[in-house]
Amino acid sequence: MIKKIEHIGIAVKDLEHATKTYQALLNVAPYKTETVEREGVKTVFFECGDSKIELLGATREDSPVGKYLSTQKEGIHHIAFFVDDLKAEMKRLQNEGFQLLSEEPKAGADDKSIVFLHPKSNHGVLVELCEDQSQF
Amino acid sequence: MIKKIEHIGIAVKDLEHATKTYQALLNVAPYKTETVEREGVKTVFFECGDSKIELLGATREDSPVGKYLSTQKEGIHHIAFFVDDLKAEMKRLQNEGFQLLSEEPKAGADDKSIVFLHPKSNHGVLVELCEDQSQF
Repeated sequence: MIKKIEHIGIAVKDLEHATKTYQALLNVAPYKTETVEREGVKTVFFECGDSKIELLGATREDSPVGKYLSTQKEGIHHIAFFVDDLKAEMKRLQNEGFQLLSEEPKAGADDKSIVFLHPKSNHGVLVELCEDQSQF
Repeated sequence: MIKKIEHIGIAVKDLEHATKTYQALLNVAPYKTETVEREGVKTVFFECGDSKIELLGATREDSPVGKYLSTQKEGIHHIAFFVDDLKAEMKRLQNEGFQLLSEEPKAGADDKSIVFLHPKSNHGVLVELCEDQSQF
């Protein structure tokens, strides 16, 4: 079951500058900075109510975020929904006709297991589903 | 003060089809459908935890959402943050150098008073600040 918006992912070209901007906007310091080498991404997280803002910077040009920023303007990259049972939700959404981008959950930033749905399933929105890794 | 993500606005070309898609995705029926004639937009709202998903369809091509969809793909249009004191937050952010799109709050959908920040202030993200209208 989808419980809430876990975070909004924002792809940015200058992560240091964007961190200052979002710290000023949200009036709060980031609670975590984390690099996921396998995905070629460096992330900065801010708390916002019961959700988070995740800034995404590429650590190499051929990473998913690097490729995204080479063809599109910086801005909102994805919405992540927190689910209480990721595998059950993957099965439910596949049965509803949504296209998953991986058959199995992957390890994401911020101690999450994640899977993405193809934007074409969701009127152009890249959707992430995530649950806490400790549930595995 | 920014308290939480109030909603994510998603601009779509076929509001009826998108409503079915997001009802299936979120596994919940919309709680409200509302047309804001002045803005040329029809909105459909879904609850998601402590936040909402707002689908935006244009009621005429020359409306802000109509113009947006004539030049850009459908997808995430804006993030709205709920604030406890809109005028104080507008003043704080102007002092921080953020560019507001209006000098005064406007009436938005879902009984909110709203103001937008220019995307160029926020690394490509159109940001809305909103508070409940009853606070006026």
